[in-house]
Amino acid sequence: MSTDTQTPAQTPAETPAAPPARGPVTSASYSITVRLSADGDPATIGRIATAVGSAGGAVTAIDVVESRSDGLTVDVTCSAADAAHSEEVVAALDAVEDVHVRKVSDRTFLLHLGGKIEVVSKVPLKTRDDLSMAYTPGVARVCLALADHPEDVRRLTIKGNTVAVVTDGSAVLGLGDIGPGASLPVMEGKAALFKRFADIDAWPICLDTQDVDEIVRTVELIAPGFGGINLEDIAAPRCFEIEARLRAKLDIPVFHDDQHGTAIVALAALRNALRVVDKQLADVRVVVAGGGAAGTAIVSLLLEAGAQHVLVWDREGILSPDDDRLSPAKHELAQRTNPDCRRGELPGALVGADVFIGVSAGNVLPVEALAGMAEKAIVFPMANPTPEVDPVRARPHCAVVASGRSDLPNQINNVLAFPGVFRGLLDAKAKEIRPGMLLAAADALAAVVRDDQLNANYIIPSVFDSAATEAVAAAVAASARQEPGATVQVDEDRLPV
Amino acid sequence: MSTDTQTPAQTPAETPAAPPARGPVTSASYSITVRLSADGDPATIGRIATAVGSAGGAVTAIDVVESRSDGLTVDVTCSAADAAHSEEVVAALDAVEDVHVRKVSDRTFLLHLGGKIEVVSKVPLKTRDDLSMAYTPGVARVCLALADHPEDVRRLTIKGNTVAVVTDGSAVLGLGDIGPGASLPVMEGKAALFKRFADIDAWPICLDTQDVDEIVRTVELIAPGFGGINLEDIAAPRCFEIEARLRAKLDIPVFHDDQHGTAIVALAALRNALRVVDKQLADVRVVVAGGGAAGTAIVSLLLEAGAQHVLVWDREGILSPDDDRLSPAKHELAQRTNPDCRRGELPGALVGADVFIGVSAGNVLPVEALAGMAEKAIVFPMANPTPEVDPVRARPHCAVVASGRSDLPNQINNVLAFPGVFRGLLDAKAKEIRPGMLLAAADALAAVVRDDQLNANYIIPSVFDSAATEAVAAAVAASARQEPGATVQVDEDRLPV
Repeated sequence: MSTDTQTPAQTPAETPAAPPARGPVTSASYSITVRLSADGDPATIGRIATAVGSAGGAVTAIDVVESRSDGLTVDVTCSAADAAHSEEVVAALDAVEDVHVRKVSDRTFLLHLGGKIEVVSKVPLKTRDDLSMAYTPGVARVCLALADHPEDVRRLTIKGNTVAVVTDGSAVLGLGDIGPGASLPVMEGKAALFKRFADIDAWPICLDTQDVDEIVRTVELIAPGFGGINLEDIAAPRCFEIEARLRAKLDIPVFHDDQHGTAIVALAALRNALRVVDKQLADVRVVVAGGGAAGTAIVSLLLEAGAQHVLVWDREGILSPDDDRLSPAKHELAQRTNPDCRRGELPGALVGADVFIGVSAGNVLPVEALAGMAEKAIVFPMANPTPEVDPVRARPHCAVVASGRSDLPNQINNVLAFPGVFRGLLDAKAKEIRPGMLLAAADALAAVVRDDQLNANYIIPSVFDSAATEAVAAAVAASARQEPGATVQVDEDRLPV
Repeated sequence: MSTDTQTPAQTPAETPAAPPARGPVTSASYSITVRLSADGDPATIGRIATAVGSAGGAVTAIDVVESRSDGLTVDVTCSAADAAHSEEVVAALDAVEDVHVRKVSDRTFLLHLGGKIEVVSKVPLKTRDDLSMAYTPGVARVCLALADHPEDVRRLTIKGNTVAVVTDGSAVLGLGDIGPGASLPVMEGKAALFKRFADIDAWPICLDTQDVDEIVRTVELIAPGFGGINLEDIAAPRCFEIEARLRAKLDIPVFHDDQHGTAIVALAALRNALRVVDKQLADVRVVVAGGGAAGTAIVSLLLEAGAQHVLVWDREGILSPDDDRLSPAKHELAQRTNPDCRRGELPGALVGADVFIGVSAGNVLPVEALAGMAEKAIVFPMANPTPEVDPVRARPHCAVVASGRSDLPNQINNVLAFPGVFRGLLDAKAKEIRPGMLLAAADALAAVVRDDQLNANYIIPSVFDSAATEAVAAAVAASARQEPGATVQVDEDRLPV
């Protein structure tokens, strides 16, 4: 079991959403384009489509790219369920009479070719006058103004809208320690999401070290050019120390999305699930599976929000202060949650519990254990890519189910939180992030679902609901501005603009 | 005198291009927009324009933004020669009868508001299918492929087209040590130029340290996400050690534009100037003023190109190996240039010299000293913002003059070199940069000026001549591919793209 469960925002394509009898569920992320040579027989195209369908693939497009007297060149684009399945589809195509597979292109790899983000000038650079204002000599006056008034750097440079997405490549998605270079596609994707959802300019910083001191020092040294630091896919417990030390050193906010993004969305979903079942956070008994980065942050935010009864379970069993096998981080978590030193396994922990929140590993929770929970139970199995318990099978035993699955209702997805959190922080010129801001973000996200919309299958907005980011941003900015000393004060009239 | 002379690419707006009798030369970089209240008298607009002109300003636009019964609100946009002059223009406007200045906006500051570059997604992120290919779960397959084949990182991520523009803020333009935050507008401008001239995605990294060990280690740690490192505005002699150590450690090219960019353009200009006067590089006597970053790189490239007679002059006089006042870096420069241990000041050094190249400080060269040079002398006073000798006054005494001035023929501007150099390095997947590549860049840039175009007033292409970047890029890429071990070898057929 890994307790370094990452962003629970993935479509678990490996997990069929429906019984196998209905055939594999295909996904765009396994979409391929197969270039074929075929004879000129009009029936051949039909046989091609039939072959893909018979192999369980879904045809998206068939393009004849060349038609000659001796035959056709055809591009067949289709989606499969996974890598093995796409090979089966290709084999089925190659087996069609008078058809020859020439090249298989993977649309996901094609999309990543050359990288997914670029740097664009916001100012014209066509004439000498343009150059003289954007670069030398005009830029010199701006530099001198900033040397005199460093607090204006956020206004006159990219710093005011820029976030570094920092990783050491040690806990990338569910893939583990793949290193900084191989993590770059994820960090680029994160940067693209920052722009798409919150118009923030984020840049990947993939560090060639996993030493805590070096990571902290490097981020500290590059910080002048950024308005915020988003730590990403850094393994626990290292991530806790890095975050804490950077927060103490830097005058810009530091956010570990795997922790706080997940916690914000989980708390928002829980708030609304409690509205559905008409229970109070202070009264319910909550079991969190997974004492890693995400689990620790969820527990902290639950306690901050007023939860009174939280237990954490991990590979060692229920985390208990009297268990001397625990790491220092887990021991501290046990002290904050389990004063009675309860011990036991997950099914035992769940007896009488109102809420299960899983950020641990796939299939650790037998569906039968749900029967022991309190009435109107709330179950969030968010492990990625395979949930702790199949959400579809869990559904009959609970009042509300949410998971990381995009093909089921109530997807818990970090993209509902991190863009808005940083938008709010940047808008407020925040120097740091405080627990009250995380709480404000969760409450604002929950409130996006109106009373007349709320039901067991709709406790959290869609990732494409722009109201989510806007609400989170406004709440975080307002919270930051209220906190004494949390934002940079500038003289709005000083600049000649 | 500063020997840390930077990029000689500035328009020296401080230096009038014409005798004072013709009035100050206005520049777009000192353009202001003045918002005025005025009465409704039709003659007032005329008086406004006259006031600007009388004060020596140039009116670009007059916009009536509001017209009411009790008067007008008018925006007057005009350019001035410098900051003091723009204040004079504002005072002249405020002195016009029935006119009241309400706000002065500086167009250069307006241009910099919010920063000059942004990060843009190259892939669509509109649907769940888009997300599933660009981010999870599809991205995981790309990450795993890169973990298996790190050499593909340059193909499937931004690394293949990305340059870090790294500074410590210690020698920014001619402004000196203004620190990392205040240097950001320059680094953003550089990034914008990279995009504009070579379609390269560059990102500013402004370091909060001036310690050589820390700078080297930080750049080393962030290198996985970049395909090249452009060091910028780092003071000499620190820049030499940083560059040398990074080149030894990294598997991506490291280029210090203040050194090598300047050297490439200067050598290209010199090649063509020698064509004009029909002399050979191996025969001519060259005097370089300034033994800092730019001067050292120019000397190295001149020697690499075959120059046999080079002397360097700096504040200590002609740099001589037997002068024990010299720093280690300057002593080494003296050893490479002055075996006869000549001593003396600049006018003495120039007696009989064929070429003067200045990267030192303003007005260090009396125009009378040019009379002692050899016939058909070549003079490049490139100090910024004020040249070593006024190029206009130097012209009658020389065959060819070039400078950093954009308002005179033959502007030596680094933008002719660095975009093309990195374009070529990235295209070739270069792991390092070698002297032969710099030489190839200079020769290619010189060759852009055809024989039928070449004359004393046209030895170097315009900064807006796209042929310059293309020629430099092609030459650098070809040179890199020829050098054994200088580029990354990839299996072009491995990826399903």
